[in-house]
Amino acid sequence: MGDQEVKLLGVWASVFSKRAEIALKMKGINYEFVVQDLSNKSPELLQHNPIHKKVPVLLHKGKPICESLIILEYIDETWKSGPSILPEDPYARSTARFWAKFIDDKCHPAIWKITGSQGEEREKLIEEATGHLTTLENELKGKRFFGGDEIGLVDIAGNFVALWLGVLLELVGIQLLTKEKFPKLSEWVDDYLNSSIVKETLPAREELLAFFRSWFQQSKGSQGEEECEKAIEEAAEQLIILENELKGKKFFSGDEIGLVDIAANWKPHIDKVPYPFIYQ
Amino acid sequence: MGDQEVKLLGVWASVFSKRAEIALKMKGINYEFVVQDLSNKSPELLQHNPIHKKVPVLLHKGKPICESLIILEYIDETWKSGPSILPEDPYARSTARFWAKFIDDKCHPAIWKITGSQGEEREKLIEEATGHLTTLENELKGKRFFGGDEIGLVDIAGNFVALWLGVLLELVGIQLLTKEKFPKLSEWVDDYLNSSIVKETLPAREELLAFFRSWFQQSKGSQGEEECEKAIEEAAEQLIILENELKGKKFFSGDEIGLVDIAANWKPHIDKVPYPFIYQ
Repeated sequence: MGDQEVKLLGVWASVFSKRAEIALKMKGINYEFVVQDLSNKSPELLQHNPIHKKVPVLLHKGKPICESLIILEYIDETWKSGPSILPEDPYARSTARFWAKFIDDKCHPAIWKITGSQGEEREKLIEEATGHLTTLENELKGKRFFGGDEIGLVDIAGNFVALWLGVLLELVGIQLLTKEKFPKLSEWVDDYLNSSIVKETLPAREELLAFFRSWFQQSKGSQGEEECEKAIEEAAEQLIILENELKGKKFFSGDEIGLVDIAANWKPHIDKVPYPFIYQ
Repeated sequence: MGDQEVKLLGVWASVFSKRAEIALKMKGINYEFVVQDLSNKSPELLQHNPIHKKVPVLLHKGKPICESLIILEYIDETWKSGPSILPEDPYARSTARFWAKFIDDKCHPAIWKITGSQGEEREKLIEEATGHLTTLENELKGKRFFGGDEIGLVDIAGNFVALWLGVLLELVGIQLLTKEKFPKLSEWVDDYLNSSIVKETLPAREELLAFFRSWFQQSKGSQGEEECEKAIEEAAEQLIILENELKGKKFFSGDEIGLVDIAANWKPHIDKVPYPFIYQ
């Protein structure tokens, strides 16, 4: 590839890395995907994104471009060969940028907070997230994709809504984006996930489920020692009750680790962690 | 103006409204500035920015463009007459977008939180903000403006750093952006504030000081009743001490309301309010 060398530093479960990959594939650009270990960040990542130390980083001829939406604009401005990611018209471009930012600023945090909430707080957060999805549902009226007939910036920015949202909420036992409540958005999810480049690029739902299930559990391990000791003491008192509940089952939810297994230890942790693997 | 009609819905003390105004003036575009009352939002604002209900909103031929950085890109793409706000080269464009986002995501919240902090928490926040300013200082090395020889996207996005930062920190008795610690950034502040369009567009420092002093005080009034009653009780106990301290002075800091007058009532409020008048 020589001078045209294109590398992407990313992780497979990152909603943001996948944005860059979809855009590169749309443009037909060959790239090397360099898998990052975010628990032990590589000198390459730290060198090329010293400010945020996050993925994805696109390296083009050795020069780094950071922040996924900025990467999408860079790809669109650099390679004119494939389909356009942003429309030509300045007003349509500003609208696309507006909705992409809306997804990042509003949808991501609202859904993420739901996973660590309980009771009344959870109800409020679900209401908030429902409002954001309704906004997207309305924006889709009369269109197949947010970009119109073809996939564009907002669709790619919507990876999270199309796939990650359902995975995260399934892990905490919530259904939000249903065909009944959001017919247009549900149709968009199907169309988007089944379009050829997206299909070959995004991870399988089951893999993501397994990944985040494990991520939620591991987060337990990173709590402070004192908190852990207190939790162990409390748990000891409850072991007799649990023992009875577990009879005949491997995990509380049956054969696989499920909601009850992870719920107790997740909540105190949520405000301290960044969105997992959706570093932009 | 007819078809070319350009309106800007904004407020004079908004760092974000001023971004749009500077860009319009750079391009030599005549526009009507429609002052908004954010405590009683106009039907026009609610109609054109129903999602965020914030200023600025640029109306061009009746079509609304929201979010200040998106407005800057729209202005640059729509009017090719004046100087460019973003550079031509895609890599340079991505770098400009990166730093503009850095200012919004990192510098604004860090400085804002300082104003409502005390003691150890404040020390930590000052350290964080110092880190962000050091990052900007390094980015300026070898350049007059972030955009190079001329003002560009990052400079305009830096309104807050150039003017608002010093105003807010003065109100809580902190000096952060000094010539000794940040020689390049201080030089940039001078050059930026003294460039003709910026000078005629940004509010006078004294006006901003007066505005935010009053804003900090008013925020006291919006606390819950119970909190207020408790505060009054506590205050009553301390009145004798204060009475002595005030002898011969109108306010604690002399003739004008100053730090001590506003500090006590500000802190519990800060996490509940959005950045004042810097709605983007």
